[in-house]
Amino acid sequence: MDNFSFYAPTYFAFGKDTEKQAGALIRRFGGHKALLHYGGGSVVRSGLLDRVKESLNAEGIAWVELGGVKPNPRSGQVYEGIELCRKENVDFVLAIGGGSTIDSAKAIAAGVLYDGDFWDFYEGKRVEKALPIGTVLTIAAAGSEGSPDSVITKEQGMIKRGASGEAYRPKFSIMNPALTQTLPAYQSACGITDIIAHLYERYLTNTKEVETTDRMIEALIMAMAHEGPRVIENPDNYDARANIMWAGMMAHNNSCGVGRSQDWTSHNLEHELSALYDVAHGAGLAVVMPAVFTYTMKHDVTRFAKIANRVWGCPMDFDCPERTAKAGIEALRSFLISIGMPKNFAELGAKEEDIDQLAQTCCWGSENASGKLYGFTQLTEDEVKEIYRLML
Amino acid sequence: MDNFSFYAPTYFAFGKDTEKQAGALIRRFGGHKALLHYGGGSVVRSGLLDRVKESLNAEGIAWVELGGVKPNPRSGQVYEGIELCRKENVDFVLAIGGGSTIDSAKAIAAGVLYDGDFWDFYEGKRVEKALPIGTVLTIAAAGSEGSPDSVITKEQGMIKRGASGEAYRPKFSIMNPALTQTLPAYQSACGITDIIAHLYERYLTNTKEVETTDRMIEALIMAMAHEGPRVIENPDNYDARANIMWAGMMAHNNSCGVGRSQDWTSHNLEHELSALYDVAHGAGLAVVMPAVFTYTMKHDVTRFAKIANRVWGCPMDFDCPERTAKAGIEALRSFLISIGMPKNFAELGAKEEDIDQLAQTCCWGSENASGKLYGFTQLTEDEVKEIYRLML
Repeated sequence: MDNFSFYAPTYFAFGKDTEKQAGALIRRFGGHKALLHYGGGSVVRSGLLDRVKESLNAEGIAWVELGGVKPNPRSGQVYEGIELCRKENVDFVLAIGGGSTIDSAKAIAAGVLYDGDFWDFYEGKRVEKALPIGTVLTIAAAGSEGSPDSVITKEQGMIKRGASGEAYRPKFSIMNPALTQTLPAYQSACGITDIIAHLYERYLTNTKEVETTDRMIEALIMAMAHEGPRVIENPDNYDARANIMWAGMMAHNNSCGVGRSQDWTSHNLEHELSALYDVAHGAGLAVVMPAVFTYTMKHDVTRFAKIANRVWGCPMDFDCPERTAKAGIEALRSFLISIGMPKNFAELGAKEEDIDQLAQTCCWGSENASGKLYGFTQLTEDEVKEIYRLML
Repeated sequence: MDNFSFYAPTYFAFGKDTEKQAGALIRRFGGHKALLHYGGGSVVRSGLLDRVKESLNAEGIAWVELGGVKPNPRSGQVYEGIELCRKENVDFVLAIGGGSTIDSAKAIAAGVLYDGDFWDFYEGKRVEKALPIGTVLTIAAAGSEGSPDSVITKEQGMIKRGASGEAYRPKFSIMNPALTQTLPAYQSACGITDIIAHLYERYLTNTKEVETTDRMIEALIMAMAHEGPRVIENPDNYDARANIMWAGMMAHNNSCGVGRSQDWTSHNLEHELSALYDVAHGAGLAVVMPAVFTYTMKHDVTRFAKIANRVWGCPMDFDCPERTAKAGIEALRSFLISIGMPKNFAELGAKEEDIDQLAQTCCWGSENASGKLYGFTQLTEDEVKEIYRLML
């Protein structure tokens, strides 16, 4: 196991009606005037925004608001949020929504305290400070409610990039599983897929002897495989929603990823798809993961056989572990299809003729890019193209 | 799933040589003068204490020291520590040792800031404030390095009781698995048993539909079952030590116990044994757990069958799930014996003629006691006696 540090000082208020604690929690963590940042109309229509405002009013917390965050959140709105916060002397950013809203809130929170262009953070500059951030989570997926990460898309060139830093870790996150009961099945399935991806990408490690975190990752994937179909069948299943919501946080706060190398190849390849076609991140991952895993399996067949056997119940073929490994990837693919996820480029709305561009941006798109992807295994631009072709 | 809040803001520095960070971490968390609190001679003999002092000196952190903490730490030394801290204007308590040392450090840290008798906290008073606490962990067991809990034994009447409060959660914990390589096999096994008990007592819940935390608990027990025998066979197996150390923290920081009722019956019954006979806590638990589980199994056979099947690989008997449940308890017992733990009163040095006293203190020993134990199931004093008799 590798040396590591782990620090996850987010306060979680989990369960029914917990959004009523928003005002008190902002006060507890030092806020006086908050930016309420949210996405589409559902936060408004459901009455959630009003309930949060009531809670802030009751505690004497002032607020301004900025709605309209889009999935795959854009840099344009981040600049708008930074300007608003500065003009209004905002000292706390409250995201009300899913991963896109939270990621946008994080970018705003860092940008307000930074003299340069906030995009620097998404080109590799370390996030050192940010306004304190809180979240009211409305979709279990990105894990951004408990993570130090954020992903933003720059309109110019449609570049989607991530940034990271402890200042991005929310001070508190309000997690009420009931808020996710109104999600369309497709969005729920996208969230489940994203959570599974966060787990697989931690599982695919080159570090030896990491049985504790291996077991934890397997546990969380098995929980998702159990609860996922239950919320697709019955969106009102509160307990299934609750299990998914806690698993989504645990999957990405890194307690199951410490002390081991990780693989973020699937996320890298997917970011190009959602940037170019504006598809849901989870849907993109459902198409990307089986292709990436099929291509990289030969790098460590035992690892793929282990997850196949332990998580998906594939019998271990001791004469040919590769058969077990492959069966596991097929089991994952079947599971994702069963909850309504797309299986190939066509179903996703992606196009074969864009593969060269996708691979090029993926390998060379950021200022720090080297033309190769480094993760579980090292991939050249040509290999990335081959993987995209497996998605056809 | 029940509503809950979760807040675990401890910074973990994990891995080789991390004790060198002690001084910098005390500074980071606001300390200027530390109490170095530790147990027996091994911390001194191994050079660990000197390395910690060097690290403090390098950062200009002053210190005083109080060694000699005993397993099942006593109230007498807590009073001594409180007095020392007040006299010396100590503003940070650093525990260097295992659960006993950390628990003693927590009691001192709270006592310094409290006008009354610190024992009030162990009679049910909520811990509201304490000096900041840090730890350098030398045995994976109690999970106190990441928990808000502390257990102290009062010499008068040999009463062993726990206290809890967020102020007890360490600001930082230094976890270097190499420090545990010099532990005798028996102590290592005691630690493993304690970790398994923390997991079982969270598993035994009356809350329905908690699959995510069920799976996490199962995962951590399986990791212990895998790594435990490896450190007994080879004490120098760093990676096995590392896996156990991280599992020990995760088992008790409550991320796998949130939103569900828990059972602390085995801990309650064991505390009487270690208070009366001064046996190692883990050794006591090895004798207590199979007895408690055998007695309470009928309360929820399915739950015991589930852990038997998933963790210990016992075939599910669909005609008679009780057979599976029993097989799981036997598998646990065999495992504990295999790593060198005692299996009954005689091997533990406990006496049949003390059973009435043990049960009486267990059910009526604290000021708030009601004569019954409440956990997975409700137990009368007579039932507690019956359970102790199962340990003969």
